Amino acid sequence: MILQPVVNIAEICARKGVENVVLSPGSRCAPLTIAFARHPKLKVRTVSDERAAAFIALGMALTTGKPTVIVCTSGTAALNYAPAVAEAFFQQVPLLVLTADRPPEWIDQLDGQTIRQQEVYGRHIKNSYSFPVDLSHKDAVWHSERMVSEALNEAGAFPAGPVHINIPLREPFYPTADETIKFDAKVKVIEEEPNLFELGRNKITKLQEELSSYKRILVVAGHDIPKEQLLQSLGSFTKATGSVVVGDIISNLHQGQEVIRHQDVFMASTDEQQKQALQPDLLLTFGKSIISKSLKLYLRQCKPKAHWHLQPAGQVADTFQALTKIVRCEPVSFFQKMVEVATVRTDIAFKQAWASLENKAAGFLTDYTSQAAYSELTVVARVLQQLPQESSLHLANSMTVRYANIIGLAAGRKIQVFANRGTSGIDGSTSTAVGCALTSSGITTIITGDLAFFYDRNALWHNYIPSNLRIVLLNNHAGGIFRLIEGPKQQQELEPFFETHQALNAKNTAKDFGLHYSSCNSLEALIQVLPAFFSADAGASILEVFTDSKANATAFTEYKQALQKAF
Amino acid sequence: MILQPVVNIAEICARKGVENVVLSPGSRCAPLTIAFARHPKLKVRTVSDERAAAFIALGMALTTGKPTVIVCTSGTAALNYAPAVAEAFFQQVPLLVLTADRPPEWIDQLDGQTIRQQEVYGRHIKNSYSFPVDLSHKDAVWHSERMVSEALNEAGAFPAGPVHINIPLREPFYPTADETIKFDAKVKVIEEEPNLFELGRNKITKLQEELSSYKRILVVAGHDIPKEQLLQSLGSFTKATGSVVVGDIISNLHQGQEVIRHQDVFMASTDEQQKQALQPDLLLTFGKSIISKSLKLYLRQCKPKAHWHLQPAGQVADTFQALTKIVRCEPVSFFQKMVEVATVRTDIAFKQAWASLENKAAGFLTDYTSQAAYSELTVVARVLQQLPQESSLHLANSMTVRYANIIGLAAGRKIQVFANRGTSGIDGSTSTAVGCALTSSGITTIITGDLAFFYDRNALWHNYIPSNLRIVLLNNHAGGIFRLIEGPKQQQELEPFFETHQALNAKNTAKDFGLHYSSCNSLEALIQVLPAFFSADAGASILEVFTDSKANATAFTEYKQALQKAF
Repeated sequence: MILQPVVNIAEICARKGVENVVLSPGSRCAPLTIAFARHPKLKVRTVSDERAAAFIALGMALTTGKPTVIVCTSGTAALNYAPAVAEAFFQQVPLLVLTADRPPEWIDQLDGQTIRQQEVYGRHIKNSYSFPVDLSHKDAVWHSERMVSEALNEAGAFPAGPVHINIPLREPFYPTADETIKFDAKVKVIEEEPNLFELGRNKITKLQEELSSYKRILVVAGHDIPKEQLLQSLGSFTKATGSVVVGDIISNLHQGQEVIRHQDVFMASTDEQQKQALQPDLLLTFGKSIISKSLKLYLRQCKPKAHWHLQPAGQVADTFQALTKIVRCEPVSFFQKMVEVATVRTDIAFKQAWASLENKAAGFLTDYTSQAAYSELTVVARVLQQLPQESSLHLANSMTVRYANIIGLAAGRKIQVFANRGTSGIDGSTSTAVGCALTSSGITTIITGDLAFFYDRNALWHNYIPSNLRIVLLNNHAGGIFRLIEGPKQQQELEPFFETHQALNAKNTAKDFGLHYSSCNSLEALIQVLPAFFSADAGASILEVFTDSKANATAFTEYKQALQKAF
Repeated sequence: MILQPVVNIAEICARKGVENVVLSPGSRCAPLTIAFARHPKLKVRTVSDERAAAFIALGMALTTGKPTVIVCTSGTAALNYAPAVAEAFFQQVPLLVLTADRPPEWIDQLDGQTIRQQEVYGRHIKNSYSFPVDLSHKDAVWHSERMVSEALNEAGAFPAGPVHINIPLREPFYPTADETIKFDAKVKVIEEEPNLFELGRNKITKLQEELSSYKRILVVAGHDIPKEQLLQSLGSFTKATGSVVVGDIISNLHQGQEVIRHQDVFMASTDEQQKQALQPDLLLTFGKSIISKSLKLYLRQCKPKAHWHLQPAGQVADTFQALTKIVRCEPVSFFQKMVEVATVRTDIAFKQAWASLENKAAGFLTDYTSQAAYSELTVVARVLQQLPQESSLHLANSMTVRYANIIGLAAGRKIQVFANRGTSGIDGSTSTAVGCALTSSGITTIITGDLAFFYDRNALWHNYIPSNLRIVLLNNHAGGIFRLIEGPKQQQELEPFFETHQALNAKNTAKDFGLHYSSCNSLEALIQVLPAFFSADAGASILEVFTDSKANATAFTEYKQALQKAF
């Protein structure tokens, strides 16, 4: 019979707010499969490739904000989760990873599908637990129940992330015919009430005083999901202090007002005078990573007097080599409290310098993309323009997210942006978008290159293709980025070993997985096909946009020349 | 400029016998890519999906017996190697894993493609090294050179396995136009001369004495590649001692004479009397894992008086819960030395009991498969019969290798058998076969199920499809094993969560990757198509054999009933 504490895992997960479970098939994990599949409150799906399964789960956790549970059998199944586990760790997304295992006495005894699963995620997991293998003593049952609560509490606590429970299971794995699986209404659950991560009154006063000594405050937002309250408090703060706010497309600040969004465009071509005009005395940052390399390089070179990073808890990165103070509070709360500072004497020239370059860049981009030749950059510009309102956008690594960050989203557009920038891998972007689409009602669009798309083709290998999924595939039949960046393009190895020409088109893939398929190889064709592609009832679709890697490289050089000329 | 110690890694590899290198594209790893690609003595290929790349490298190391080098960029690329690294670890196959990394000061600073790469393979690697990041001191250069020799020596030393060097690299990653890459003729190389793993004279005499006290010696061979010398010494040993030798299909003992190969057939239906007749007093084992579950269960139940395991070094598994002595020597040397024992008084009845059941099983199988209905079992029987001489066979997990072990290969056939039974995953079987095919001249056939095949479809996503590759795809559109084993087939979750119906056929995949494609759905059609499929000039081909999962289950039940009746 299936042991009650194993069945209780599903019950505790449901009680603690888990909604979605992604299983991968196996025999060792059968007791878990059965417990989760039979639980009335959990939505359970099965995906065979564990690499894709874990990224799909990540996408679900991103949209729902709740931990997704993933369940796999013993052996390398657990290792195929590792890329998504690392992405969840660095992107701070809650996952509960349940891996079935052989009992300890059978490890290293040459039995099938047996590896060393304890601590298998190394340093890319918030915590690793070992489920008790012998459950006859009541303390072991208490341990097992406590562990599931602890793991879920830990996955959700700031900074959120993946937590692993390795579960050794002895046979039998399957209930007998007369056995019924009962969920225990009295199972122990430990709730956790999070705090507000607010600063004490003394600290606030002290920080207000310090803040009022600065005249050129630059706020740089890192990677994060959209947060209504943050936009509001940040709006009030900038109004009161005259600060400048800068946010990449993955900061999701485009929904706010007066946010600098084209730093990637103008930062690359500023002269010394402009650099001085833009230099902050106080840099305030929050959130995770930054895409804009030119912004990073600029701030590392033209350091502010002080750099405060706002982060409630956890390790803090010194992204700009300028960090002087870590403020342990919620950014929302910080900006709300600091609004009370009336005495910031804004340096108007600083604010104007940023605003003027932003306007110029926006104008340049509008002009340039409306007349430039067909290339990936102009394609991305058109696609971003045409995205449906109240939809989600997933940006794949590696060139796609950079193109999109150059173009940006128009201010105020209700579009949630996601990207796997925790580790910036190409290994799970489509899967993550599928997970987002499965747990959202609006259209979910992923823009991706051909290497990322075919790498993660198993994102579509299951029985749940969501009708709201739209895949825009920029197919240049190569890792086109290597022709765009300096260095590889001068090497004899460019084509065989960096670009790595690949011959695939997506038409057969669309056929295989039952997605609608259209393609285009001109801007005119793209413009014609986009409205139907984005219509609400189009169903899951791939739009394959063919470009030539060399032509993209030429177009990108032209873009940079035009930019240089304009600035 | 590219630092000379980084260039020297390629040189040391070439000097120490490395022949094959599999790269995956990236910018951080560019110095390594360039060094390996330009080395005149190394065969370098690039594969974009690191999971497939590492399994392809494993296949190459299996056929060549030499370490394959794999090179990837920083970030989750390294994690995608993990399944193949674990398989190499447990299958004891030499790999040198080179992962490019950011320098230590940039770890955890929110830069792209940055994870915690040191010791990233946890307990599934023989050793992990950190390449020095600062190479200005001459001791650091000595360290860097020594490290590459040490890692390769360690990868090849018994038991062979994967070794990892994490290589932090600072910019620039690319040589300038006027820079030439030179391989250093004077680079330090440490050779390693392996010993013979032979026992001392006293130990031999003592073991001979002990051995001569047994009358019923059973030799069970585990998973291994074919070894001519071993077959010879084992042949002499059995002749001299009257021992019985048992070997699964993955033991590659079918090339020898008088080897019991149908234990999987008759062991499942022996009665108490037969069990007694078969029981050894001394069990001698060598090699790695055993497929035959009924043999394992039998020996755990009917334990020998003594169980000696022959293994030169490393951790030893107690597969049959009967282990009494570990003999630290090469099996070849052990059997050669023990032949001198003239005094073993063989129990003829014991030898006859095994021979009689083996003959009966062979006869039963011939009769049964020649008349049984179309099912995966009969298909595998026909395919094994028709395999070209002097060819390689790769058996995928999970049902394929079991079917093949039931049928077996006819005695003396010159066919090398491979299977990823280190971890028994379905994640890299096709890739491993591709690696074998790329480094062998004969036909390389993989027999695989649909889940394993589509899981690892990226095995074919590169520019090196070998013309000697033959893929026999048993497509039942599901994880058919769950309908064959007891337990899941009685559950309501069978179809949605265990079998996991999948809709793909391979026709589009063949088109995508330029392989010849044929299919069949009857034994007659199969028989007709096999000669052309296996012809030397057919080119890389997929033969898709459609069966019905339910019909396979019925056929397997019938097989078991017929077996019960026959025995």
